[in-house]
Amino acid sequence: MKIDGTAYRSVWVDPDDDWSVRIFDQTRLPWTVAVLRLTSVAEAMHAIASMQVRGAPLIGAVAAYGVCLAVRADASTEAMERDCAALAATRPTAVNLRWAIGRMLTRLRNTVPAERLAAAYEEAGRIADEDTAQCEAIGRHGVGLIAEIAARTARRVNVLTHCNAGWLATVDWGTALAPIYMACERGIDLHVWVDETRPRNQGAALTAWELGSHGVPHRVIADNAGGHLMQHGEVDLVIVGADRVARNGDVANKIGTYLKALAAHDNGVPFWVALPGTTIDWTVAEGRDIPIEERSPAEVTEITGRTADGRIETVRVTPSSAANPAFDVTPARLVTGLITERGRCTASAEGLLSLFPERR
Amino acid sequence: MKIDGTAYRSVWVDPDDDWSVRIFDQTRLPWTVAVLRLTSVAEAMHAIASMQVRGAPLIGAVAAYGVCLAVRADASTEAMERDCAALAATRPTAVNLRWAIGRMLTRLRNTVPAERLAAAYEEAGRIADEDTAQCEAIGRHGVGLIAEIAARTARRVNVLTHCNAGWLATVDWGTALAPIYMACERGIDLHVWVDETRPRNQGAALTAWELGSHGVPHRVIADNAGGHLMQHGEVDLVIVGADRVARNGDVANKIGTYLKALAAHDNGVPFWVALPGTTIDWTVAEGRDIPIEERSPAEVTEITGRTADGRIETVRVTPSSAANPAFDVTPARLVTGLITERGRCTASAEGLLSLFPERR
Repeated sequence: MKIDGTAYRSVWVDPDDDWSVRIFDQTRLPWTVAVLRLTSVAEAMHAIASMQVRGAPLIGAVAAYGVCLAVRADASTEAMERDCAALAATRPTAVNLRWAIGRMLTRLRNTVPAERLAAAYEEAGRIADEDTAQCEAIGRHGVGLIAEIAARTARRVNVLTHCNAGWLATVDWGTALAPIYMACERGIDLHVWVDETRPRNQGAALTAWELGSHGVPHRVIADNAGGHLMQHGEVDLVIVGADRVARNGDVANKIGTYLKALAAHDNGVPFWVALPGTTIDWTVAEGRDIPIEERSPAEVTEITGRTADGRIETVRVTPSSAANPAFDVTPARLVTGLITERGRCTASAEGLLSLFPERR
Repeated sequence: MKIDGTAYRSVWVDPDDDWSVRIFDQTRLPWTVAVLRLTSVAEAMHAIASMQVRGAPLIGAVAAYGVCLAVRADASTEAMERDCAALAATRPTAVNLRWAIGRMLTRLRNTVPAERLAAAYEEAGRIADEDTAQCEAIGRHGVGLIAEIAARTARRVNVLTHCNAGWLATVDWGTALAPIYMACERGIDLHVWVDETRPRNQGAALTAWELGSHGVPHRVIADNAGGHLMQHGEVDLVIVGADRVARNGDVANKIGTYLKALAAHDNGVPFWVALPGTTIDWTVAEGRDIPIEERSPAEVTEITGRTADGRIETVRVTPSSAANPAFDVTPARLVTGLITERGRCTASAEGLLSLFPERR
């Protein structure tokens, strides 16, 4: 997607600069747009561990390029296996991280050391391209939902989203935001309500920044405000991403998603979840079986932002202690439908199997 | 209620110090406990306008004492009428402000100037005492809800509250927090989930501080977290306050209250609203007729807190613009019941009229 008119991906390679890898330092957004140059597997590991890159698909792609940087330094099997094991340990719970590294290893173990470097860059490039194609397909399958509302109402369409499921979380396009970007390309008049998404503020910091940089009209709202806006007809459609989807269509996503789904249901507002097929956990029967990560209370009690004179400061907002469940589960009954790279379906076992019949 | 073992009200008079009026500067909480000494009507007006005091009942009581300070400076009818008009204009939408000033004027207009000062302090003291008694009665009528759960489950009771409806918003006890304080006095083992309450953070800053100061176990949570906690049985009871209640039992309260009511309803968690009878607007048939204030976007985009080295800083959290509806309406169908100074009732016209038959 674009930053002030120029198209970017969230990770890319510069062949004219020693095939080094470029990423945006997402910990400094929205205030500073800093492109980092990764030249070693150690730098790639640091980027993932310190959350300079985040979002499961993007983590996978950066890990794949990290394997390239490892092979560049030492193409021996021993070094490659050791570096891949270290890369895989940077974020222990990220499914895409291990999936991408596993795919790289499968390819490289079957390649002689002298040819590994070229093969690694080719395979990492494929992973990035496939992710982009998958997200673009999600956009293509989702844009009709926005187009239908625009055609029916003949006015600006208001879409609400929670957290960041945009191009910064993938290689390009995003998942929940892909239909929104595609609607913009088609010239559909829309406006996005961006949930601030406490406690980590991914909506206020990342989603608002990427929509603004691409030129998509939007406003940030407190997470408390969505229900009121829906009661007053100011939300036509909700689209969110997913961290994991159970076989029955229950959706684990950023904490607070469930509350928005309840409000959408109560007000007859369509509530859609956009996800690549890799997000479906076929081993999990229903949402209650998905473990919910409890993160540091400091994410609730401390907030980082910019002072009026341009300093970045972290302030504490309460003297008390806090609890911080990071995700919640939205029951399938509250989900209007799922948007995947293969098309749309109902949030149910039958719906998912209709798109992924190989899982029957 | 208590601060570190010493009982306080949120406004009081010091007869040994020229009958000056004392308040806490709530804009500096939770980081600094500053008692302000008000000696003139101008200082009382500033305290109300700058939100050093907030909460409808407390604003009313401070305004009443402001009339005392006005009469102290000049007990003539002309000065009194002029000062009262100025006081009433400090927060144009606060119902209790004008009610309290009106009550003071009714008393003082019927009193000769020479006797006005004593009459003013007596009447203001009555207003404060009546507010305290009303809140204490709300606590008495609400504590049974907590006691029943404690008796039934024989374990710690988890209560969730939103915003600040505590003693800092009234003269003492609070509304939503009155049953909680009374349960503590009875030795019931409880723990309060305190919604941060974005965008103004009254939960994180005020409710958490007053519960902590009184010694009530609590933890702050992001506004997004309540639904997840209810899904997992970690909330036994929700109690919130109200800004205005319609004749049919619909409740206007701080933005986000509706989302918590939806989650409580979806999970079978009792959702109670505590309010003095003065909060019922008998002229409003249903919630949709209550106008919702749209406040400054800066309340969403900027947050004030304390840095690690003790400075108070305001930081901006997003480069984007924001929308900021300040209240929402929770439909009566989601409210288990209302707790008033006259007892408990269902959230319905019949329920309200059963407690306030004079309104039939």
